[in-house]
Amino acid sequence: MEDNCLFCKIVAGQIPAQIVYEDDLVVAFNDIDPQAPVHILIIPRKHIPGMNDVGDDDGPIIARIHQVAVQLANQFNVAQPGYRLVNNCNEHGGQAIGHLHYHLLAGRQLSWPPG
Amino acid sequence: MEDNCLFCKIVAGQIPAQIVYEDDLVVAFNDIDPQAPVHILIIPRKHIPGMNDVGDDDGPIIARIHQVAVQLANQFNVAQPGYRLVNNCNEHGGQAIGHLHYHLLAGRQLSWPPG
Repeated sequence: MEDNCLFCKIVAGQIPAQIVYEDDLVVAFNDIDPQAPVHILIIPRKHIPGMNDVGDDDGPIIARIHQVAVQLANQFNVAQPGYRLVNNCNEHGGQAIGHLHYHLLAGRQLSWPPG
Repeated sequence: MEDNCLFCKIVAGQIPAQIVYEDDLVVAFNDIDPQAPVHILIIPRKHIPGMNDVGDDDGPIIARIHQVAVQLANQFNVAQPGYRLVNNCNEHGGQAIGHLHYHLLAGRQLSWPPG
């Protein structure tokens, strides 16, 4: 756990969040500023600052995040109409929190370009 | 290989593309309709129709796609300013081709929401 990391504090239960899923590797919770009817953040328990910091050993975490995305899409009945999965890295990507997270957005037509 | 799949044909070399990376699991090439100065598609060689079809055995493919995204971001000097990695699933996601693909967008400020 990284001191002063908002998402580490959510993982640790020190800050409340609307958690929709958790297991040994990842935690998923509703985005506090949703941009779509379904807008969930999926994050690793492990403090990985961002995509550039994902190590070769983190493959199982990345794979699990994607399994959970599909599982949540099914759970929220958006798998078939569809969804967008987004990772923002650093400033140009619009990364707001320095703890790896994927945005799962669904429940409306997502437009192009993606930002 | 799936008949009539544009991306399978690119993987097989039957349709030209500006390929920027390939290995035993994935191929990456420039998007034909770029939405940012760097806009690369990263796809598995294997025909996986979309995110909902990623199987438990496909974890290494998903992990590799992400490793390649970071490698390409470094190669194109956009890793530090940042980038956005996007997967579109089905109609609401805006998925245009029925072969799993990730968009790597960089070289400009990506806005929010992501579509």
